[in-house]
Amino acid sequence: MNTAQTIHCELCKQSGGNVVWEDPDCRVVLVDGPEGNAFPGFCRVIWRQHVQEMGDLLPRQREHIMKIVFLTEMALRRLMRPDKINLASLGNMTPHLHWHVIPRWQDDSHFPAPIWAAPRREEPRRLRPERDAVHAAMTAALVEFFGANSPLVPPL
Amino acid sequence: MNTAQTIHCELCKQSGGNVVWEDPDCRVVLVDGPEGNAFPGFCRVIWRQHVQEMGDLLPRQREHIMKIVFLTEMALRRLMRPDKINLASLGNMTPHLHWHVIPRWQDDSHFPAPIWAAPRREEPRRLRPERDAVHAAMTAALVEFFGANSPLVPPL
Repeated sequence: MNTAQTIHCELCKQSGGNVVWEDPDCRVVLVDGPEGNAFPGFCRVIWRQHVQEMGDLLPRQREHIMKIVFLTEMALRRLMRPDKINLASLGNMTPHLHWHVIPRWQDDSHFPAPIWAAPRREEPRRLRPERDAVHAAMTAALVEFFGANSPLVPPL
Repeated sequence: MNTAQTIHCELCKQSGGNVVWEDPDCRVVLVDGPEGNAFPGFCRVIWRQHVQEMGDLLPRQREHIMKIVFLTEMALRRLMRPDKINLASLGNMTPHLHWHVIPRWQDDSHFPAPIWAAPRREEPRRLRPERDAVHAAMTAALVEFFGANSPLVPPL
């Protein structure tokens, strides 16, 4: 961990969104900034420690965060039935390991371009999911993923 | 697998780039189109079967493709020493599961924006790695990742 980076790092200091689920290693947040408003259901899975790349994690840590990313994908698909899921770990602006999990629809503002490209149309009005709904869908996906004896207990 | 999609799917019909490495489940290609020229070392990890989302794979298949994605990341970092790695599975245009593994530099054409945003400057002249160099770096990363008894034997 680079302490200097940690002091100035947005994701070391702030949650990065509305926390849906967390464990000692990572948290899932519903993005509540301008990006989140444009893309309903946009979640981020954020590693707790300040680490830059997936390759900087231990193999079991990589496996863990990816399980949470796929769990988030499953939860969002179940809840929102998007046409596509986009997954990305970029971190050029904030080099603190995090994954974007973005439900996409064929009529959304940017489709089929990535959300970082120029918009193509106005986003239609779409219901934004609540934190509790995403949490409940994640818990269901978690039980399906790990079985009844899930090693991960979601917070109450 | 959706047969209709498979017939018209670019990644079912074509390699999608210069094949660096492959096994029965997936292949790693060096992108040799316009995107590849703009971003030296840009690789894709492509699942062989026509599957749309990571959540459509079995857990062991998800684990396998992610190992190959991280192996590609390690190989590119070793070979090119980029400032950042970008990983993304989007598939809005070609909904056949594939991962982008993109070395990024602070002086590249789009940094710190994602490569799909508007460019900010001209790309400096940078050496494009050859297929064989990426293959050799991948083999080294593979041995490091899995140990000497790697279950994955790279093709000769």
